[in-house]
Amino acid sequence: MSRRRICVVVTARPSYSRIKTALLAIHEHGDLELELVVAASALIDRYGGVVRQIERDGLPVAHRVHMLVDGESPVAMAKTTGLGIIELSTVFHHLAPDFVVTVADRYETLATAVAASYQNLPLVHVQGGEVTGSIDEKVRHSITKLADAHLVASEGAAERVRRMGERPESIFVTGCPSIDLAAAVRESPALDFDVFERYGGVGAQLDLSGGYLVVLQHPVTTEHDLALEHVSATLEAVSRVGLPTLWFWPNPDAGSDGTSKGLRRYREQHRPAWLHFFRNMAPDDFLRLLLGAACLVGNSSVGIRECSFLGVPVVNIGSRQAGRERGGNVLDVPHSPGQIEAAIRDHLARPRPSEDHLYGDGRAGSRIADRLAVLTPTFEKRIAY
Amino acid sequence: MSRRRICVVVTARPSYSRIKTALLAIHEHGDLELELVVAASALIDRYGGVVRQIERDGLPVAHRVHMLVDGESPVAMAKTTGLGIIELSTVFHHLAPDFVVTVADRYETLATAVAASYQNLPLVHVQGGEVTGSIDEKVRHSITKLADAHLVASEGAAERVRRMGERPESIFVTGCPSIDLAAAVRESPALDFDVFERYGGVGAQLDLSGGYLVVLQHPVTTEHDLALEHVSATLEAVSRVGLPTLWFWPNPDAGSDGTSKGLRRYREQHRPAWLHFFRNMAPDDFLRLLLGAACLVGNSSVGIRECSFLGVPVVNIGSRQAGRERGGNVLDVPHSPGQIEAAIRDHLARPRPSEDHLYGDGRAGSRIADRLAVLTPTFEKRIAY
Amino acid sequence: MSRRRICVVVTARPSYSRIKTALLAIHEHGDLELELVVAASALIDRYGGVVRQIERDGLPVAHRVHMLVDGESPVAMAKTTGLGIIELSTVFHHLAPDFVVTVADRYETLATAVAASYQNLPLVHVQGGEVTGSIDEKVRHSITKLADAHLVASEGAAERVRRMGERPESIFVTGCPSIDLAAAVRESPALDFDVFERYGGVGAQLDLSGGYLVVLQHPVTTEHDLALEHVSATLEAVSRVGLPTLWFWPNPDAGSDGTSKGLRRYREQHRPAWLHFFRNMAPDDFLRLLLGAACLVGNSSVGIRECSFLGVPVVNIGSRQAGRERGGNVLDVPHSPGQIEAAIRDHLARPRPSEDHLYGDGRAGSRIADRLAVLTPTFEKRIAY
Amino acid sequence: MSRRRICVVVTARPSYSRIKTALLAIHEHGDLELELVVAASALIDRYGGVVRQIERDGLPVAHRVHMLVDGESPVAMAKTTGLGIIELSTVFHHLAPDFVVTVADRYETLATAVAASYQNLPLVHVQGGEVTGSIDEKVRHSITKLADAHLVASEGAAERVRRMGERPESIFVTGCPSIDLAAAVRESPALDFDVFERYGGVGAQLDLSGGYLVVLQHPVTTEHDLALEHVSATLEAVSRVGLPTLWFWPNPDAGSDGTSKGLRRYREQHRPAWLHFFRNMAPDDFLRLLLGAACLVGNSSVGIRECSFLGVPVVNIGSRQAGRERGGNVLDVPHSPGQIEAAIRDHLARPRPSEDHLYGDGRAGSRIADRLAVLTPTFEKRIAY
Repeated sequence: MSRRRICVVVTARPSYSRIKTALLAIHEHGDLELELVVAASALIDRYGGVVRQIERDGLPVAHRVHMLVDGESPVAMAKTTGLGIIELSTVFHHLAPDFVVTVADRYETLATAVAASYQNLPLVHVQGGEVTGSIDEKVRHSITKLADAHLVASEGAAERVRRMGERPESIFVTGCPSIDLAAAVRESPALDFDVFERYGGVGAQLDLSGGYLVVLQHPVTTEHDLALEHVSATLEAVSRVGLPTLWFWPNPDAGSDGTSKGLRRYREQHRPAWLHFFRNMAPDDFLRLLLGAACLVGNSSVGIRECSFLGVPVVNIGSRQAGRERGGNVLDVPHSPGQIEAAIRDHLARPRPSEDHLYGDGRAGSRIADRLAVLTPTFEKRIAY
Repeated sequence: MSRRRICVVVTARPSYSRIKTALLAIHEHGDLELELVVAASALIDRYGGVVRQIERDGLPVAHRVHMLVDGESPVAMAKTTGLGIIELSTVFHHLAPDFVVTVADRYETLATAVAASYQNLPLVHVQGGEVTGSIDEKVRHSITKLADAHLVASEGAAERVRRMGERPESIFVTGCPSIDLAAAVRESPALDFDVFERYGGVGAQLDLSGGYLVVLQHPVTTEHDLALEHVSATLEAVSRVGLPTLWFWPNPDAGSDGTSKGLRRYREQHRPAWLHFFRNMAPDDFLRLLLGAACLVGNSSVGIRECSFLGVPVVNIGSRQAGRERGGNVLDVPHSPGQIEAAIRDHLARPRPSEDHLYGDGRAGSRIADRLAVLTPTFEKRIAY
Repeated sequence: MSRRRICVVVTARPSYSRIKTALLAIHEHGDLELELVVAASALIDRYGGVVRQIERDGLPVAHRVHMLVDGESPVAMAKTTGLGIIELSTVFHHLAPDFVVTVADRYETLATAVAASYQNLPLVHVQGGEVTGSIDEKVRHSITKLADAHLVASEGAAERVRRMGERPESIFVTGCPSIDLAAAVRESPALDFDVFERYGGVGAQLDLSGGYLVVLQHPVTTEHDLALEHVSATLEAVSRVGLPTLWFWPNPDAGSDGTSKGLRRYREQHRPAWLHFFRNMAPDDFLRLLLGAACLVGNSSVGIRECSFLGVPVVNIGSRQAGRERGGNVLDVPHSPGQIEAAIRDHLARPRPSEDHLYGDGRAGSRIADRLAVLTPTFEKRIAY
Repeated sequence: MSRRRICVVVTARPSYSRIKTALLAIHEHGDLELELVVAASALIDRYGGVVRQIERDGLPVAHRVHMLVDGESPVAMAKTTGLGIIELSTVFHHLAPDFVVTVADRYETLATAVAASYQNLPLVHVQGGEVTGSIDEKVRHSITKLADAHLVASEGAAERVRRMGERPESIFVTGCPSIDLAAAVRESPALDFDVFERYGGVGAQLDLSGGYLVVLQHPVTTEHDLALEHVSATLEAVSRVGLPTLWFWPNPDAGSDGTSKGLRRYREQHRPAWLHFFRNMAPDDFLRLLLGAACLVGNSSVGIRECSFLGVPVVNIGSRQAGRERGGNVLDVPHSPGQIEAAIRDHLARPRPSEDHLYGDGRAGSRIADRLAVLTPTFEKRIAY
């Protein structure tokens, strides 16, 4: 019997982290054949060269789809989605896979969902049912209503997908594959290389042995004019704490040019000796870095998910992660330099948080592959009430 | 104070019928300014020249958007949606309206919803919460999750939208504007013109005085290969009944070329003296024709909605309207010539069904305009559970 | 040694006729592999189902590309070209052929040329260097300046391409493949089947034994508002002549809906007993029909090319073929009912014109294939002066 | 009488420099109204924020068009052109200008030409008829064959356009507007500001008083894999010369990411004390910098055009400017570190070259505006032989 062909579309660095162990498990599964499509910012060097990381991880790339319309505006995001639908419908038509898998809630993710739906291809959504606010919230639930099956991270997510009218037999709690990476890293946590040498980046060479902060702050789409102000507040707070700081470049949402500008300007004006910028890092190296950090600062979901599993202290800023279920490792603050600083100092003064399996137990990847091997392919559904 | 600018996108003949009285009410409302965008098949003569009907109705057209990718395939539908997002995001960027209104559940409707969402424009969805099956079902609920406010036709629809996690204060039962047209027609029901003279069409000139059938049958998207077979079953059944029959050309979904081919072939082979084809008709003339008909045959939602209000007997064929709330005027049958024929004969033998206000009381248009005049503009939301 | 891969893009019925024998010769050539892309109106039933004809002719289709933006306007033509570039650049990227071949001067043809040029693929243009006026004129010469090699129909065309600054060693006179079809038909000219039975169409069944006219009239792009007026003039003239008339539906340029409307209206008003409409015909059956015709009327290039080879009398109307080299078989008239009628009657009174090899000797297809097998692949050039 | 509306599309930093004085002259002309469309990389901060420069220059922007598909590949260039045609056809349809003006030979320039041609808008091409090689060469002449009038920089260009079959009465030698900027700068040549303070950039603060080099090197489209190698050769040569060096970031052609990577890597490895990078500069400040430079190194057309007018020594590397008419100020070398270094040293040892009016006398802008005010609008043409 021929193997089921599973088409997965990866469009950005964070989506890759969130699906990597599932991709490896699909690729190695005897009953499945992986058809991996790499698209949008995942193809662009400036956004971290995700496609090269994918190849280094031993995953074969079936198609590369250029669909990212450049620009720092909501119009460009919309056009990227439109162009994505045009391009991906061709790809899906040629591949004609048994299932299309779309990940989480980025705007290009919706392009995958729409292109697959119109071609009557069974659509599997990984990581639906979560709550965040912002445009991601709309996009995530909108994809849920296009998807035929739902592989979710937590019981809470499963419950929300069910309440949205999806049939219970189409919903499966697998945990989040990003937790699998965290679990592997917890097994071998040593940061046994020089991050500056391996990843380059720009800024001061820092001594990390006395503790360090990691910052990862994305612009919030529906507030894109505020991106510059937001990044400045965080820079101010972190500079006051004075620990060596590793700052990661944001992904290409509308507003990232505002964030980038704030970072560049600060660096050129202050030439801070405590600050180093990275564009990208292999996910497991990044997690090792987090595991060793005194605190993660910003608004990334990694603080809510992986860091709860790993027990890393997190200062979560602003509205981007509002509504997500979180563990005891997270302190929430607004975009205020004073409150950000206070929360970091608060964490530094406390004992390390305990681990929490809220978003998975570390075996999501193989659970997803096993589910895809037996899932009934359907592309027609009706609301359950 | 300046008037609120309300941008409505009309993409096809049926969407226009479903929003016309609301458009007129918005256009005449003292606090509102209508910005009407006419797009896709609504611009194409072959699909009924909807844009000219709109102009005859006295509505000003702000933008015309060519976005229909030609072809009889799911790929073309997907590409139409992608091109629509690209085009409409430009239009919305220029217009920068206070609200964008999207109607019902056609595939291009999703393009409107996505383009508006990414630009942080408050999105109002008219006629969400209904149940139909097929790709329309996915698209309709997907739009609900992108929309910021919901103006629905029935209490049942409101309940479903609420259960999908939309905030109760964003949901309003207005009734369906298509019922408004039916209500107006019921006030002046006389078919006081010669339909053949006014609308041309092709086929035999028929004597309608002794009773007649009306047929309106769309291809079902997820079964597009079956379009030819389905239309042939209906032709066979109707030919056996033998009443003069007015047949309306379908709209441009995937598969409509299969339907068209079936119709053309039948006509050329049989040259039936009892059959006349129309491409299009002013909605109120069409409703007058329905009001005088012995029976409506096919799978149009007009049979479920307007005909329940008007008390017109309907034979509803196949899965396209499955799941919709319906009145006592509807007999449901599969795509079987025998069962279609039997159901028509059954209706002919019975008394006329009574009227039913399931989908509105005839004042939806002004209710929608009044609601838009006071609605709080928001573009950020979070699932209610 | 692996065979050279030759990618040819066919976008419409007339382009297929103009390249068919070359496609067959490439397909059968031992050193070549045909990668045939069928796109735009060639995929649409309404425009003659060219793709099915291609398959019946035994040619394998590598890709189908939906790119036709529907509408009766210049905007839709431009958008079709834009979408075509987007789509074809993906196709060429996947196929990575040794040569891309683009045919003649339709607007979608430019999409092929642009997509190939940007990807540094050697571009071969078939049938450049001719003179016609209208947008085709601009497009044809614009493609010449993108193309790396030129396979032209006549010595006059070769001379013009050379004078435009193309290197003489990149220009080859092959004749036009459409003449090959005419040559084959001249060998077996008998119309030994019933055209009405084989091709259906609409209108009266005609007795062709006493002589008949064929009409093929396209809208002229830069005058698209005049399409309705032009078609009416021809209808009036032909009706006065009174011979049985076979009329072919136009191709989907801007304005064809105006032409279609004129034809439909005339038919419904006059129900002419002397008139039959066809949408499409296998090219050789069409040529047999021309060979037997008393006169071809309209503005098709077939009157200038194939009919000069076959010695068929032609009344050429209006500006569409202005500037093309022509034989003694053509009478040129403006869009005047009286002058069209007079020219037809003039031809009927004269002896049959003699044959002329202006556009080829009937062996263009194999000459093109042989040339492609030895052509040096280049994609960089510089103007020759 | 209403003023003629002149739509000009600016897509990139170099195109703006080449048309700026014409834009100002059109804007100030009593019989003309400027409709300026800013598109593609001209909208993106990363490529120099051209749109903000345009606004600072007092020019009103009618439309902003996001059309740049991100990526470092030929496929992305082609898709940018396709998306550009889709977008610009909408813009031209709304503006319905009397003339569309397209500048030079960038790939997006072709999108302007195609979109205007299909809508029967008179198309004016500025700076056709030149010779360069690479994809620009194909694009430039291809635009010539779409354009209705030609405003060229030199007599040699006029002669080539005429020989391509354009009617002599549609060709006008105006000179190149970029020379106008050079002429103005020559009148007030003092570099009376601190370039590092005004333009920021990254790298060492340099002392320019003892002479300095300027480098501007673009990737060559048809050799995009070589971009990294080429930029490295120039870095090596310039480092050996040892003068303070101002290096300008390239524009977004395919391959610019290769160039960028080479620059970044060099800077991070060597931290050169003699090197400073700029992303962008007001054109006149840039020309003042050139006027004061010991030598311009690279492959920019500014070395061929403005520098010949200004008498600035130039080392022109590689094939990008091959075939252009040039003055005595240019030494041509291949991508060899040794030969680049030798040519720079050669210039340093010689007297300053004399000025040359090959590409204009400094009054092209007003000559272009005056011509547009009286030009006969046509959109139909036929090859002149």
